[in-house]
This record gives sequence, structure tokens and C-alpha cells, in this order.
Amino acid sequence: MDYVYGPGRNHLFVPGPVNIPEPVIRAMNRNNEDYRSPAVPALTKTLLEDVKKIFKTTSGTPFLIPTTGTGAWESALTNTLSPGDRIVSFLIGQFSLLWIDQQQRLKFDVDVIESEWGQGANLDILAMKLAADRAHTIKAICIVHNETATGVTNNLSAVRNLLDEYRHPALLLVDGVSSICALDFRMDEWGVDVALTGSQKALSLPTGMGIICASPKALEASKMAKSVRVFFDWNDYLKFYKLGTYWPYTPSIQLLYGLRAALDLIFEEGLDNVIARHGRLGKATRLAVEAWGLKNCTQKEEWFSDTVTAVVVPPYIDSAEVVRRAWKRYNLSLGLGLNKVAGKVFRIGHLGNLNEVFSSSFGLSTATAGLS
Amino acid sequence: MDYVYGPGRNHLFVPGPVNIPEPVIRAMNRNNEDYRSPAVPALTKTLLEDVKKIFKTTSGTPFLIPTTGTGAWESALTNTLSPGDRIVSFLIGQFSLLWIDQQQRLKFDVDVIESEWGQGANLDILAMKLAADRAHTIKAICIVHNETATGVTNNLSAVRNLLDEYRHPALLLVDGVSSICALDFRMDEWGVDVALTGSQKALSLPTGMGIICASPKALEASKMAKSVRVFFDWNDYLKFYKLGTYWPYTPSIQLLYGLRAALDLIFEEGLDNVIARHGRLGKATRLAVEAWGLKNCTQKEEWFSDTVTAVVVPPYIDSAEVVRRAWKRYNLSLGLGLNKVAGKVFRIGHLGNLNEVFSSSFGLSTATAGLS
Amino acid sequence: MDYVYGPGRNHLFVPGPVNIPEPVIRAMNRNNEDYRSPAVPALTKTLLEDVKKIFKTTSGTPFLIPTTGTGAWESALTNTLSPGDRIVSFLIGQFSLLWIDQQQRLKFDVDVIESEWGQGANLDILAMKLAADRAHTIKAICIVHNETATGVTNNLSAVRNLLDEYRHPALLLVDGVSSICALDFRMDEWGVDVALTGSQKALSLPTGMGIICASPKALEASKMAKSVRVFFDWNDYLKFYKLGTYWPYTPSIQLLYGLRAALDLIFEEGLDNVIARHGRLGKATRLAVEAWGLKNCTQKEEWFSDTVTAVVVPPYIDSAEVVRRAWKRYNLSLGLGLNKVAGKVFRIGHLGNLNEVFSSSFGLSTATAGLS
Amino acid sequence: MDYVYGPGRNHLFVPGPVNIPEPVIRAMNRNNEDYRSPAVPALTKTLLEDVKKIFKTTSGTPFLIPTTGTGAWESALTNTLSPGDRIVSFLIGQFSLLWIDQQQRLKFDVDVIESEWGQGANLDILAMKLAADRAHTIKAICIVHNETATGVTNNLSAVRNLLDEYRHPALLLVDGVSSICALDFRMDEWGVDVALTGSQKALSLPTGMGIICASPKALEASKMAKSVRVFFDWNDYLKFYKLGTYWPYTPSIQLLYGLRAALDLIFEEGLDNVIARHGRLGKATRLAVEAWGLKNCTQKEEWFSDTVTAVVVPPYIDSAEVVRRAWKRYNLSLGLGLNKVAGKVFRIGHLGNLNEVFSSSFGLSTATAGLS
Repeated sequence: MDYVYGPGRNHLFVPGPVNIPEPVIRAMNRNNEDYRSPAVPALTKTLLEDVKKIFKTTSGTPFLIPTTGTGAWESALTNTLSPGDRIVSFLIGQFSLLWIDQQQRLKFDVDVIESEWGQGANLDILAMKLAADRAHTIKAICIVHNETATGVTNNLSAVRNLLDEYRHPALLLVDGVSSICALDFRMDEWGVDVALTGSQKALSLPTGMGIICASPKALEASKMAKSVRVFFDWNDYLKFYKLGTYWPYTPSIQLLYGLRAALDLIFEEGLDNVIARHGRLGKATRLAVEAWGLKNCTQKEEWFSDTVTAVVVPPYIDSAEVVRRAWKRYNLSLGLGLNKVAGKVFRIGHLGNLNEVFSSSFGLSTATAGLS
Repeated sequence: MDYVYGPGRNHLFVPGPVNIPEPVIRAMNRNNEDYRSPAVPALTKTLLEDVKKIFKTTSGTPFLIPTTGTGAWESALTNTLSPGDRIVSFLIGQFSLLWIDQQQRLKFDVDVIESEWGQGANLDILAMKLAADRAHTIKAICIVHNETATGVTNNLSAVRNLLDEYRHPALLLVDGVSSICALDFRMDEWGVDVALTGSQKALSLPTGMGIICASPKALEASKMAKSVRVFFDWNDYLKFYKLGTYWPYTPSIQLLYGLRAALDLIFEEGLDNVIARHGRLGKATRLAVEAWGLKNCTQKEEWFSDTVTAVVVPPYIDSAEVVRRAWKRYNLSLGLGLNKVAGKVFRIGHLGNLNEVFSSSFGLSTATAGLS
Repeated sequence: MDYVYGPGRNHLFVPGPVNIPEPVIRAMNRNNEDYRSPAVPALTKTLLEDVKKIFKTTSGTPFLIPTTGTGAWESALTNTLSPGDRIVSFLIGQFSLLWIDQQQRLKFDVDVIESEWGQGANLDILAMKLAADRAHTIKAICIVHNETATGVTNNLSAVRNLLDEYRHPALLLVDGVSSICALDFRMDEWGVDVALTGSQKALSLPTGMGIICASPKALEASKMAKSVRVFFDWNDYLKFYKLGTYWPYTPSIQLLYGLRAALDLIFEEGLDNVIARHGRLGKATRLAVEAWGLKNCTQKEEWFSDTVTAVVVPPYIDSAEVVRRAWKRYNLSLGLGLNKVAGKVFRIGHLGNLNEVFSSSFGLSTATAGLS
Repeated sequence: MDYVYGPGRNHLFVPGPVNIPEPVIRAMNRNNEDYRSPAVPALTKTLLEDVKKIFKTTSGTPFLIPTTGTGAWESALTNTLSPGDRIVSFLIGQFSLLWIDQQQRLKFDVDVIESEWGQGANLDILAMKLAADRAHTIKAICIVHNETATGVTNNLSAVRNLLDEYRHPALLLVDGVSSICALDFRMDEWGVDVALTGSQKALSLPTGMGIICASPKALEASKMAKSVRVFFDWNDYLKFYKLGTYWPYTPSIQLLYGLRAALDLIFEEGLDNVIARHGRLGKATRLAVEAWGLKNCTQKEEWFSDTVTAVVVPPYIDSAEVVRRAWKRYNLSLGLGLNKVAGKVFRIGHLGNLNEVFSSSFGLSTATAGLS
């Protein structure tokens, strides 16, 4: 039984899960396999090596965990920190809010820096806090690279510069869920200690794999971190990495082959070309929004996101109704406005394996309105 | 190895083969099966019953032949006619031309009624020929319902009216390749004797199945027809229909399950809704062409096709270059101009399992031109 | 790139991940979808309702968590218990060992009852412990229904009887990873408080979904449980259940449709027929092992497992070599001996969507002849 | 709706259509494409080049026709012969019978050499006919390399030797439907003029592609052949080969990618290894039949087929009942006895992408032990 049925294909433009390319769908169209045979470790080895490239790291250690972004967050935090640790965290939209909620529930002492939704992380306040923290009580800075709820991209390089300026040893933990593989991301250059994404975002896979990369400093921290963890414990992976069998518990065979295919597509196009393409399509989307006479939820150009655009609807319209009607009438999936911007914005995801023609999907509304 | 690779999906808007709906791709994603088991005949029985509905016939006999439209043509002709038989055939574009070529090579005496490309069948001349043919030397009228090369739909009901008016017993053989399941087609009401289509057209399947429906009069004619035929002989099918095993030779298991899924989708939407949707999308396409300031190759509204639009480019542009660039730059597949209209038109296929958002794929060119 | 290549199909007989039926592979062969559209909650609703049937519960609350069996264990423990809580846990093989390891790392006070590998849970000792525990310091009994490492099935009904006999309020937490959907399992009747399985076992799906069912008493306990948890917190699910959107974070669209198809197959065959079939194939496997002149690792008939058989090889043979050669030479995947029985046993998984002919893969035709 | 449902996979051992390897199923799991884009001709070019290797020809010209084996037969005959031409044809089973029926209906003068079913072609009679035919009235010898109904392999090399011995210029037309890609076949060395197979046989694809290879002498003959043909006319292909677009009418995109994958698998294993494997599995099957105490329908070892074994059942058993019960009870598909051997034999297909473990499906472990 297919619950979505209408003629034509579903036009999927939510900011995740995103469209899966045909070659990746094909690669995953398979039976299970014994993950203890020689084949799966051989495949895994190539994946662990290659996945580092999407983080732009050579010194990082990747973990492919059967979980979602929420689990990846938990893995990043519990492996590097101990209950009671002070962390600075930016609240700029629904996803940073959820991460902060998790941080609090995991018993960290969360020092929240809040911005208006539609603005980026307030780095001036971060600077003040770092300057004031001579005792280095701040153990980690947690930041969402791209806030999916508002379409805001934060400047990670600036965060690194501040940490360097104040010679502050805090770990830099980055949620790259809607950025990695789509926006410029440089783990090593920016001194990111833990970066993470989910398979269903720019990698264009099904949900189910949390992809985490830890710097040597993060691995070192994990030896001291007292947060209770088992399923998300990096150490269980490291033990199996040494054995060459790689998996402490059963991975999804399909996602492994899917990841292989997804990485092959990205490398075939060239990661920097992929990023440039997102830049092009992001800009095209913003031009379209402008042409419609609508406003971008993101308040300044420096924060414009090339993976998701939150479009503000006029006050007399309920954005949820736009989403509902697009889905029902046109088999077109758009993102809802969440929490503070519920009813006020709808979101267009333009990340993953897309090309120019996709964007025309948004040129139609007036043309078709008279016909349907 | 995938020869078509570029980021994003291929946007397929040739008038065949057309986009396959996901549920149909899924249904065909399977191993082979023994076609002599009880399962395949049981499935076939439902297909033969249901496929009649897309022809709007209750008295016709369908044949599902492992071949293409060209083979279906041959099956229609050789089963009903004898070498030397006089047939009247309309030449209005590349596909009617190819059918006429086949008719001649099969040794029929073909009386060709030619129209300028972009016009429909000249029924005035047909009327004259019928009026003059008191001896009933004309054994069949062969007409393409929808000429895919020029986007011209012929008026079959008018053809039937002429035959009735002159009480002429000629068989009416109709190529419905780019019409059946998309345009209004009424086999019984219009007294069509053989109608045919191919799986890769409005049924939205892969190529490989020629679908033919024969009226009782056509079946009667087949008993006398002296054209040599074996692979395309209806009689071999009829023999196996009687046995209840249905297949004189091995069918494609995948296409059988695919046809089941395709018919299910059509009936779920409702055949008349499918046809109305093609009307809506055809009109939208023509409005877009007009908005681009370009001309429709089809010369009069009465012939406008709701499945394919041939767009005339300005004389200083080579339409093949438009097609080439769309493919290379946008992963967008358009139809070439063929033969007399090569270089002069490109074709947009808007048939099959599409929805409104598809049409926006053609609203983009100017918007993206500056970006890519 | 396929790392397993040899002519012919891979014959997969490890005790997980198991063979996926073709209809399930087909159901999962799809693009992503917006999980916030009306379609996914509608689908989820049927899944939550139907999944209870495989636990044989009407009062339980199911959770479909994007994780593996290890994560499902963690979810069962952290939602019902507080650090320091005393739990009784049976060690009878590698998987019960791993669970105990997790219990200890999660800071519970684990009272381990160990048996020789190849034997079932020692219920006499349990009885003594329960009898002695007048203060009800034991908060939970943790037991693996079917130990996958040794092919031993424990008697859950007997455990319940002991708890009842001693009127002991301890929670009963059951790992049903290699039993549920294959062996007789009765959550309500046996008073199981938390039962869990993984998608890649008898449900015959890919890995990636931990399926957990909580009794009302377990849900009640979760309100008091002080174990730190976020990703695995049932409460986040319950909140979204109330909203009717069901998902606190992104589910795998493919696994949802896959689970739908898997349940449909199970209900079409009838759950009790599925269980009876496992009984038949399990017995056939044991007869074959006997016919080969080899010994079953399981020491008594009462513990024989109908989902996995651990076969003891003669001392002069390394069982890992048997597995290696089967894979390399015959594209046949068997399970390795683990930990204490490494090199001594190989394991045949006979769970999931299999039929009689499978068993002939092991030369069993005569053995099965009398049974089927 | 799946008509075959029972737990477990369908065990497909009919001699066609045969099991499709997973990588081939994956390769075909795709949307349609424009066959006039640059991609499809580029793919086709590699296919035409590589497909010659399975015929072991360098001088032959291959045709990939959207049809079945029956259509391929028709293509072989009508392109090389004229009505009334005398051809010598061997009748040794159901498929040679059907080909002869086609030859007669196509109006050739068929000189039939009949053998008892279970025996090979009677080459002594051929020798006599060739010796007597000084006037070279015999235009072609038609022979089935492997008679699928009885499991009889004819000696083609001996046929060539006779033609050479009598310096007879007759064309040698070979049905290699159940031999090519599985049995030793040498088009150039044996001077075969037209060889043909179907995609659903040893190539292990779905039905739908007739694969034909014509020698230079056959191409020369096609210029003179007066048989009426259009759909099957090689000349239409040759015209498009010259243009570099390859296809006179729409091919199945899925089968093209499937053929690419199938050829890749064959070349990866090595064609001669594939043939040797069929030898091994054929022998194993015959040993098993012997072990069952049953008789091979094939009367002498020189004719034993390594792709299909027809097993004679005791007179008090109806072989159709064996087939019926295998299907219903075990989801095991065996081939029926056809025509003269209906009820007397059932057939085991052991061609295509199989490995040793398959044979155990028939209880053959001991038999194969000594061979592999």
C-alpha cells in the first residue's frame, strides 16, 4: 500500500530526507549479507577512508553509527564530555534548540547564546565569554553549521579564529547535518573536534547512518569523558577497527553499499563542484523567492544558506496550508515552519543530488493555478 | 557503467520511452519465474481482461506481443491483409511515413494520402476515395491517431463516420502508440478494427510489449489473410488462450508484473481522469510555448496533441542544438525534430504518469541561463 | 563494486542478518519521502498497531527505534531502571555476555547467573535468589530468549511462573532478537515487561530498526527510571504519538515500507504457521547434523533452538575454516563460533523467510522427507 | 499482487527463463531514458562489440532484436533464405519441432531428418543428403545446438566437417538458445552462419532480447533473400549501425543495461570458466539422477546436455504431477515434459548464473563432493 499516490512523481524538496539518486537506489537494492564475511570489512575499509574526504580531514577518525542525527549528537557529546561540564551552545532555531535540550538532559551545564530566529550565532557574545573564561571552565563550544529550520549558515572559521585568539582549549563540536557534502566544510583547517552528519541529508541516502568524525584531540578527550555510554561509545568501534572487522554490532548492508555509491557519485562530480552547485542552486532559489515577492527568513546575506531556504509568507496566509496544498495538489513536498516560525515560513530544501531543472519546480505555481 | 551521469535526475520529456512510475519500477524489480507455473497464466488472465479497458472495448481480443510498436504494426497488417491488398494510408509525419514504408515492404498496394507536416489526415480526400470505391477494392484504412513527430492528433470518429456514410467495409487499423491511455480513444464506439500501442508510451512501462486489440471483424479477416507470418501470428496466441496457458513463447515476467502495476495505477486514478490530466498538461505546455514566443508545429487547434508538442525554433537556431544542450547541461531529455522537420522543431513529450509540477521543468531556461 | 562475487547467489545461512524476501526488497526500492507529510504517519499508525501482534500483546506499547539490537537493549534498560539498581542476568553465551557487559557499563548492579555454554538459563538459582529477596532488591530479570551463539532457547514461561510463585515484582526484560517472529513468544501471557528484537532477524528486513515493546508496568517504571537517556528515551516517542506525527526524529522511509511488507507476509502466512515452519526446519536441521555424525552444541533437547543450530566440529578441525571455505568455495555463509566456542562450532541460521528447499542446501533431503 | 506466494524464495530450475543474478537485477532497476541521447548509442556500441565474444566470433555481425527466441529464429531464416528454398532440418524434440513448423509456415521446402526423442541429430542421413546434393539445392542446414525438451546436445563441429567434406555451400543456421554462454560454442571455428540465443537463457536476463549473429556469408545471403520481412530485417539495423545511432526502433533501456551487467559478470568469471562450470554442474545433476535411481531421457553420453537434464520418471508416475507438487509444496520450479514426453519426463534446468550449492537443492551434496 502506497500512502502517497497521485499521478506523477513526488517532488521532494524538504531539507531532509532528500532525493536519492538512481544509482544509489540501485546499489541498495539487495539482499542482506553476512557482515562477518571478508567482503564487508573490505568494503568498510574503503568507506572509512573515503568518508574522511567529505569532512576535509586527514587526521580525523570516522564512525558510521546505525542511528540518526539525534544519535550522532549524543555520540559527539557523551564521548567527549562529562556530566556537569560547562558548554557554550548557540540557539538560533529549532534544531539548535533540540540539541541544547539534549545537552541539558545529558546533564551538561549549558551556557546558551540565543539569537533571534533568522539570525546566525552571536559571535560577539562568544568572544566575551571566551575572554572572560581564563580558567577554561568552558569545555566545549557546540554549534550548528547550518540551522535547517531557518536557513542560516554560521561562520565556523570565525569561531575557530576566536578560540585561537583567546588561546582557548575548548572542544569545537559541530552539527553539520545539513551542511556537510553541500556547503564548504573544512574539519582540519577549522580545527573542528567533532563533526557529524546524517545519511539522509546531502549524502542523499536513506535515513539510518549517523556519520561522525573525531579529531585526535576529541579521541583524547574520550578517554577522560565520564558520560555513561554504550551504544554510542566510540571505544567499541575502535576495538573492532583494530581487529579489522570494524563492526561492534550489525550494520545495514544496504546503507554500506549505498554509501559507497553515494561517495562515488560525489567524487565523480568532485566535492568542490558539488559545493559550487549548491551555491548556484541556493542563489537561484533566493532569486525565485525574490521574484515571487516573498521574503527570506534569513536576515542577512552573510547567513544565507545554500541548502535550505525558509520563505516567509504574508501574514494573512498560513504557511502550513501552503505545504499541505503543495503536497495534496501537486505531489510537491515542502518543509513546514517549525516552532517559533510555524505558520509563518515554509522551507525549500535544495540540498543533495539536484540539478538546475529542479529549481524550475518552483516557477510553476502561478502558471498551473489557473488550470488545476 | 552509467553513460548518463550528471548531478540530479534525468528529466525525461521525450515522447517515448516515458518516465516509469516508482510503483511500476518496484513491481518489475524481480527474478524470473516459470511462465508455465499456475501463477503466470492467472496473472495473464487478469491482464488480458483489464487491458481491454484502455482500448474501451468489450468485444475486442487483446494480444500482448514481445515486440515494439514497429512489430505491433506488422502484426496488425499481416494478420488482416493479403499481399497486393489495396490500403489507404495517411502520411502526415515521420511515424506515419515509417508505417507506410512497412506497408509497402509487406507488399500491400498502398494508396497514400499526404498532408503537409503539421497538418492532420486529409479526410476530404479519403471521402473522395471511399465515394469512388464502389467495388470495395480498399481493404483497410491505416491511420496514426497521434503523429508523434509533429504533435498532430487525427479525428478517428470522423474517419468512422465517413466509412459509415459510404457503407464501406474497409478495416480501420489505428496506430494508437502515442495516444492510447492518454487521449480519448474508443475502439468499440469508433469501430476500430485493430488498435495498437507500445508499453513504453502512455502506459509508462519499459519498451518490449506491443499491445494489440483486434475486433471480431479483424479476427474474422485473419482467417483469410494470406500474409506470411509466424512470430506475429494471432492464431498461435488464440490456440494458447484456449488452453489457458496463454503464451506461445516466453513472455517477459517483469513486463507482466509491470503491466499489472501500470494498469492498477491507471484504474486507481480513473482512465478518464488520466485523459483529462493529459488535456490539462497538454494545454499548459502549449501556453508555455506561447509564452516563450515560439510556434507550435501543429497548424490548427483541432489537431493539437495532448501527448506531444513539436515546438518550432526560429530559423537561425538549430533545434538539434537545443536538444543537445538541454541534455548535456541540464540532464533534460527532449525529442529531436525528425526528417522533414529536423533542425526545425524540438519535441516535448507530456504523456504518461506526470503531474502539474513536471511542466515547470520548461519554465526555467531563462532563469538558469545566467547562472550556469 | 561488489566484494562478494562468484557465480550464483550467496546462500545466506547466518543467524542474522537473514535473507530478505523479494516482496520486501521491492517495497524498499524507493526514494525518500517527507516524513512530516500525512502519508508517513498514516503508514506508521498501521505499523504500530500491527507490530504488537508479533509480540502477542494487546496492552504493550511498541517503539520502532532507528538502531540495532544493541541499542534496543540500551533502550529497554535505561527507560526502566536507575543506576545502581540490582538486576539478575543470565550468562549462557556471547550475546547474553554482551548484554551483561552493557548492563554493567550502564552502572547497574548485575547479579550474573552463569551456565556452561550450550546450556540454558539456570532457573534453580533464579528461584533461590527470588526466594531470598524478600526486600525486593531485584528490580529486573534480564534474559535472552534465544542465545544466538549457542542455539539455546530459554523457557520464559518458567521464569514467569517463578516470579509469580514468589510474588516478586521484578520487571522481566527479554531479548527476543533471534526469537520473536520465529519462536513461540507471548508477551502478555508470560508477563514480559520489555521485549525487543531487531529488524534483520526473523522479520527478514535490513538492519536498522530496533523494535521494542513495553508493558504498562514498564511504562510506569519509565517515569521513575533515573538512567540518563535522550536518543533512546521512550518519552520522546510518546509525546509524538500523542501529536499523531509519531516520529521524534527522522525514520528510515524504506524500513517503514519494508516493515509493512514484512508484516503483510507474516500475517498472510499466519504467525503461528510461521512459528510451526521454524519448528519443522529447525528439526530438519538437527536431523541433518545428526546424519552428518556431528554434535549439537546445545546440550539438552529442552533448549534446542528452532532458529539457530550451533554444530560442534571434531577437535581436529577448526570450525572457522569450515565457515571460510563455505564462503569462498560455495558462496555459502555460515555463522562463526564466538568467544568460548570459537573454532569449535559453526552456526547455521534457519530463521526468517525460508522454505523446505533451503534445508537441502545442507544435504537434508532425506531428513526433511519425513517431516514435510 | 504476487501469484506465487509461499514462505521462502522460489527455487527456479526450469531451463528458461533462468535466475537473474542480483547485480543484473540491480542494473535494470531504472527509469527509461531517451534512446536518441548520446548515452544509449555509446552503451550499445560496447554491447555489440562484446556480445560477439559469447559467440566466439570476430567476423560476425550481431543484432539485438526486441523479441524472443521464436522471433530470432524468424530473423535468421527470413534474412538469409527465399520462399521455396530447400533446407535440411533436424527434428529431435519439441523445440526443433517448433522451428520446423515455423520454417514450413515461412514457405521453405523443409527436408526433415527425424530422430527418436532422446537422441541427437542423425548426421549419417545428413551426410547422405549432402553427398547426393551435387546441384546444391540445399540452401541451409538448420540445427538446434541443444534441444531443451530432451536435454540433447548436438555435435556442431561434426556438422561443419560434413559440409566441408562435401564442399557444400549450404548456410549453417544454429539455434543456440539453450547453449550459447553455457556450452562450448565456436561460431567462427565451426563456420556457423547464423547463431542465435535469447536473453532469458544462459545470459540470465529477463525475456525480451533475441540475440543473433550473422557471418559475412549470411550477410551476403541477406542481400539476395526474398523472404518478406520488416521488423526482423537486418538491413534496417545495418543502416542505423552506419549512422552510429544503432536502433531502428525503440530498444528496452533496461535490457541494455542488464546485458551490460550480464556480460560483465561473464567476462569477470571468464567465458571458458562459465562453460566449465556448466560442465561440472551438468555432471553433478546426472550423478544425482543416477543416485535417485532414475533414468536420463538422453540416450547416449555423447549427447548429454550440460544445461538441461530431462529425467524419466517411472511409468506409474505422472511427471507433470512431480512438477506440480514441487511448485506447490516447495516453491521449486521444474520443467514439464513436452509433447511426446509429456507426463514421462520432468526437466531440471542447470544453466545460467548458478553455483555448486544450487545442485544440493536436489540432494546432490555427495555427488558434487568429488567434483568441486
